Amino acid sequence: MTVRQLSLPDLVDACRELGVPGVGLWREPVQAYGVEAAAKLVRDAGLAVTTLCRGGFLTAIDPGERAAALADNRRAVDEAAVLGTDTLVLVSGGLPAGSKDLRGARERIADALAELGPYAEEHGVKLAIEPLHPMFASDRCVVSTLAQALDIAERFPAHQVGVTVDTYHIWWDDQAPAQIARAGAQGRIHTFQLADWTTPLPEGVLNGRGQEAAGYTGPIEVELFNDALWTRDGREVLAETAARFAEHAA
Amino acid sequence: MTVRQLSLPDLVDACRELGVPGVGLWREPVQAYGVEAAAKLVRDAGLAVTTLCRGGFLTAIDPGERAAALADNRRAVDEAAVLGTDTLVLVSGGLPAGSKDLRGARERIADALAELGPYAEEHGVKLAIEPLHPMFASDRCVVSTLAQALDIAERFPAHQVGVTVDTYHIWWDDQAPAQIARAGAQGRIHTFQLADWTTPLPEGVLNGRGQEAAGYTGPIEVELFNDALWTRDGREVLAETAARFAEHAA
Repeated sequence: MTVRQLSLPDLVDACRELGVPGVGLWREPVQAYGVEAAAKLVRDAGLAVTTLCRGGFLTAIDPGERAAALADNRRAVDEAAVLGTDTLVLVSGGLPAGSKDLRGARERIADALAELGPYAEEHGVKLAIEPLHPMFASDRCVVSTLAQALDIAERFPAHQVGVTVDTYHIWWDDQAPAQIARAGAQGRIHTFQLADWTTPLPEGVLNGRGQEAAGYTGPIEVELFNDALWTRDGREVLAETAARFAEHAA
Repeated sequence: MTVRQLSLPDLVDACRELGVPGVGLWREPVQAYGVEAAAKLVRDAGLAVTTLCRGGFLTAIDPGERAAALADNRRAVDEAAVLGTDTLVLVSGGLPAGSKDLRGARERIADALAELGPYAEEHGVKLAIEPLHPMFASDRCVVSTLAQALDIAERFPAHQVGVTVDTYHIWWDDQAPAQIARAGAQGRIHTFQLADWTTPLPEGVLNGRGQEAAGYTGPIEVELFNDALWTRDGREVLAETAARFAEHAA
């Protein structure tokens, strides 16, 4: 997503050129290219698929919408398996129109995971609940903290359900270090994503993630939603990102 | 602030007309009008000043900046006393340029309150730490949750330092109900402010607060930062706000 202006072949090519060993893919460009073809493309390039983004959006109340969401998440698991990644990132979904019941929405996520967890396990895929910054709590993701994500994940085996640790979403939370330790002790850190916080936040607040990275040494994805980066040459942005990653995080 | 397009005399007049019994004032328009004159204006109208907004911005590292901030907060206490309100709202301040040390910034707030708390008490004023939504944690307020605010406030007597409970900033937090209970049990809810959350958030995310209110029955301020409301006739907005308050909160 950091360089979504690149086609999949260009992305794979640029990663190979820059020595980037793995890439997190998003479903839409993979589907547009063809899932099997995308899998062959990255496999032939020796590139690891670190995660597939994203399943989730499991908060609907309407039975038809719920069934459709579950079916879509099973397809996402299938796609992850074909791509050869063991991790599907879940963005849980916001409040349904007219609802203010955050707790009820979180319970519906857990209900859905009771169906999706075993299905994912059968396909060799782990589900990684991603807490999103509280500024997204109403319209995108009712899971706002690692503590909330783990409260849900803990109802399931760690090899079925864990969490995504994304610095952009949790940096402000004084409970985050303890919750990262809790997740690690349970083997539930299924992926780690890096982005810096920049101000002022843009309208809609989605695409303002910065390009400096700092302070962690595990397996890391750099995920930058940023309108300005998307207007630039994708290979240049990828090269810069790789260089800053090497400087600050490696 | 909800109707900042109104002059102080027009605000006082409109409140009287609409039967609004109290008003939270901000320092800038009060200073521009004259503190003593503003105090006389509201007193003569029989209008209570519920709070004065705002002191705070206590996170500077530079000694000169710290001294200036403390002096400014003592002036804010003085102004509150002249206006006849017993509550000064504190917005703690963001990270100093170049710093990423949230914990250190919070400690500097506590250090400052050790000086300001007794000064405020001498003037019959309580300080009310306001946690701001985590989307403001870097540039405006390093205190993001009621739990963090209370962790600081508890170091001081409740009649010196308590908290501001503002629905706009804490609605997403599953710990908020328990923390409101904690604050209430300690006599530290020094003011309560209402605003709804609206999406999409505007650029800069400051001025997007909605006009519906729901679900609380104590002393309440309605505080709506909203560019759209500020372009409209202030008396009309105040009348609407009073009507919706009566409908949803009274």
